[in-house]
Amino acid sequence: VKARLARPVGQSPLYEQLARDIAEMIRNGVFRSGDRLPSVRALKASRGVSAPTAIEAFRWLEDHGLVEARSRSGYFVMTPRPDLFAPRLVQTTGRPAAVETLKANTPILCVSSRPDLLPFGAAVPSAELFPLARLRQLTSSIVRRHPEALGTYTFSPGLRDLRFEIARRAVAWGYSPDPDDIVITNGCVEAVGLALRAVTKPGDIVAIESPGYYGFIHLLEMLHLKALEIPSNALGGLSLPHLREAISRHDIRACLISTTVTNPSGATMTLDAKQELVALLADSDIPLIEDATFADLHFRLEMRAAKSLDQHAGVMLCASLTKTVAPGLRLGWIDAGRWTQEVSAYKRVASIGQPELPQRVLAAYLAGGGMERHLRALRRRLAAQVDQHLSTIAQCLGDKVRVVRPTGGFLLWLELPAHLDGVALQAQAADLGIGLAPGRMFSVSGGFRNYLRVNCGQVWSSRIETAYLQLSRMIME
Amino acid sequence: VKARLARPVGQSPLYEQLARDIAEMIRNGVFRSGDRLPSVRALKASRGVSAPTAIEAFRWLEDHGLVEARSRSGYFVMTPRPDLFAPRLVQTTGRPAAVETLKANTPILCVSSRPDLLPFGAAVPSAELFPLARLRQLTSSIVRRHPEALGTYTFSPGLRDLRFEIARRAVAWGYSPDPDDIVITNGCVEAVGLALRAVTKPGDIVAIESPGYYGFIHLLEMLHLKALEIPSNALGGLSLPHLREAISRHDIRACLISTTVTNPSGATMTLDAKQELVALLADSDIPLIEDATFADLHFRLEMRAAKSLDQHAGVMLCASLTKTVAPGLRLGWIDAGRWTQEVSAYKRVASIGQPELPQRVLAAYLAGGGMERHLRALRRRLAAQVDQHLSTIAQCLGDKVRVVRPTGGFLLWLELPAHLDGVALQAQAADLGIGLAPGRMFSVSGGFRNYLRVNCGQVWSSRIETAYLQLSRMIME
Repeated sequence: VKARLARPVGQSPLYEQLARDIAEMIRNGVFRSGDRLPSVRALKASRGVSAPTAIEAFRWLEDHGLVEARSRSGYFVMTPRPDLFAPRLVQTTGRPAAVETLKANTPILCVSSRPDLLPFGAAVPSAELFPLARLRQLTSSIVRRHPEALGTYTFSPGLRDLRFEIARRAVAWGYSPDPDDIVITNGCVEAVGLALRAVTKPGDIVAIESPGYYGFIHLLEMLHLKALEIPSNALGGLSLPHLREAISRHDIRACLISTTVTNPSGATMTLDAKQELVALLADSDIPLIEDATFADLHFRLEMRAAKSLDQHAGVMLCASLTKTVAPGLRLGWIDAGRWTQEVSAYKRVASIGQPELPQRVLAAYLAGGGMERHLRALRRRLAAQVDQHLSTIAQCLGDKVRVVRPTGGFLLWLELPAHLDGVALQAQAADLGIGLAPGRMFSVSGGFRNYLRVNCGQVWSSRIETAYLQLSRMIME
Repeated sequence: VKARLARPVGQSPLYEQLARDIAEMIRNGVFRSGDRLPSVRALKASRGVSAPTAIEAFRWLEDHGLVEARSRSGYFVMTPRPDLFAPRLVQTTGRPAAVETLKANTPILCVSSRPDLLPFGAAVPSAELFPLARLRQLTSSIVRRHPEALGTYTFSPGLRDLRFEIARRAVAWGYSPDPDDIVITNGCVEAVGLALRAVTKPGDIVAIESPGYYGFIHLLEMLHLKALEIPSNALGGLSLPHLREAISRHDIRACLISTTVTNPSGATMTLDAKQELVALLADSDIPLIEDATFADLHFRLEMRAAKSLDQHAGVMLCASLTKTVAPGLRLGWIDAGRWTQEVSAYKRVASIGQPELPQRVLAAYLAGGGMERHLRALRRRLAAQVDQHLSTIAQCLGDKVRVVRPTGGFLLWLELPAHLDGVALQAQAADLGIGLAPGRMFSVSGGFRNYLRVNCGQVWSSRIETAYLQLSRMIME
């Protein structure tokens, strides 16, 4: 380690430089998976850095999924997780189609989120993963200090303090929005709906990823838009060649995708692919609606929003704090680029604004400064839960399923043997007290019959273990 | 009074029977405006009723706007308020038209709700009129007892406890919905948007009242619907002959109106007119979307929702608690009749659901039982504020304006001399620190140029008095 001390200091802070050096050594095999890294004391001696700098470097490595802390024994290089086999890329029809899935999906959705069932399908984490004690404290203090928060209107674009805090945090995603460009919404879904409204009219074609989040598919239906499904790979996300081809053939008016930790398949596009995507869409003058719902829960080295690569204000970034701070606050936001005024006006038309109290609570939470530490712990916890699911799946279902470790979040996308039907499995599982999310919901055309989305957001329990045994019996039959 | 004692007891409670007797004597001129009513003690003696019954009867009379309490001196028959002259009924084009007002209205709206201006136009009451202390207490207690409320999702149709409390209260409007038919929304505006979505598709014609709330006009535009304006009278509300004629000529797919305390003109249809409206629309198989935003703030004898007269589940009642309990909670609801399933699904598609904490707070507030007393006090307070505005207008502007006392709420609809333009007045007034709402926003076709909507929701102050002097100078010039 000592040899590198002489390297000139670049623009990045000392701890990051140290961390990147160690990361390179991990990649070069100097440190191998499971190895213990040098201690803080050893780094102090060998690199002449202070203890806080060394600790900060370890945190950076942990944030980037390269090392893990083990209590009282230091930092260890992460062991590669049981990546089984990736679900196959599924070809789509390549034709735009009116969406008519809500009627068929509503009963399926109702079962998947039935409160009496184990939430194996619905994307809901355990409440205890969120900083509830802190939020409770902030809530009580805010109603005491700002009782008028209950008695006044907060019109769209929303509470200035919250927009400021959100803009400040966006730095983590590689860009620095103006707080005045941010509109507060009722979660990310509403943000996407507003974005679609701003750039399309009924009958327009919107490119979406396949498989893709059913909530967005339902939005297209509600807004009378046509969907054009572009295949997306569980390993690298949206297929750019397919998108390029689709653009050459169809008059696409918006492209709605997640570039980081997709739902359901947990994929993240590489930085190069994000760059190519943004350039391709800018060339064709197609707005990109970027869903960043799970982006703060990435386990990987890089997290840059496509928005951060946008030079023409043509990307509309839609994000949420429901998956990271508190589902119960229902707060999301959008930076709508050159459509900010329209989006803000539409939010006001649709519902005036969000309630003020949750906005004040969230603003105070973000201002308080515990967010990054909380996120670090949350990612670590979710990654561990995901891995526990993956190893249980490997044990119970072996080569019957294809699945990869997601790049973040808490969802798994399972390809089952071709003869199985997720909707039939859902009905069987409900009788056993288990709620499943069948793959069919994640496409416009009824594809992915033999797929399931699995929620790893619940804290591991023997009930989950039993559920896997029950499911494997159903699947093996 | 004694003579009536022998009358057989009907189905209504004793206090109501007593109250109705007194109401009849007021109408017959036995008691005249300004007269002091017999005291509780006198009624005890003459009618043989208990003191609580007599007090309850006075409250009923007060609720119905017939008497007022004066501190330490008893109950007095209300003095007729300075009803000046009613704004004229304005003929509409009678033709359905695509709506394109949002772009022009957005800057006007921004001025009218600028936080640094006196809110003379925006429909916002003073925060102190709401039960903030109680809500604050409930909020603290709920986050203590239900910290999970911040950490969990509450999907559409919303918190069961709240839907139950709302259903229980609907009795005051003459009907008893099933809690399962109620969907919780982000205020009444969102409820109306969902209702429109459930029964129309882009390009459909919707009948609305003229003048009508700009928020609904903007909704039509956002949903790509055509508006057909039906004239509405400041004294009796929607003109039924005009509606009947419109139905015979056009393929109307929904009728969106307020039957009780319209915005902006404060009119309420008679019970007979409501009955006729419901029958007319049922005959033509046109869904009625009934806006009841201000209905709980009526000053009059009768408040029955048109929904209560609906025998075919063809009325969609949209209501809100933002004007009565807390603007900051942003909670409204809809009973969508036979479209309940669609509306609930669309709410979920649009934004999953409302945040749980405000729902719990409101449910606890309603369950606590102070609502009717609060409403009584609020109506009395608002009526007094409205009257103070009306008498100031009479003093400052005399016969320059036409205005009537609204049947409830806190809005006045002012017709100014024909040469004046509300938008120009708005710009002038903003320079003086006053925010106005120009009449033009309340129509699709740019009518009502020389009208203003005035907000009487703010507690009376010398600033308001000065504002009237400033406005009268502008108008008289």
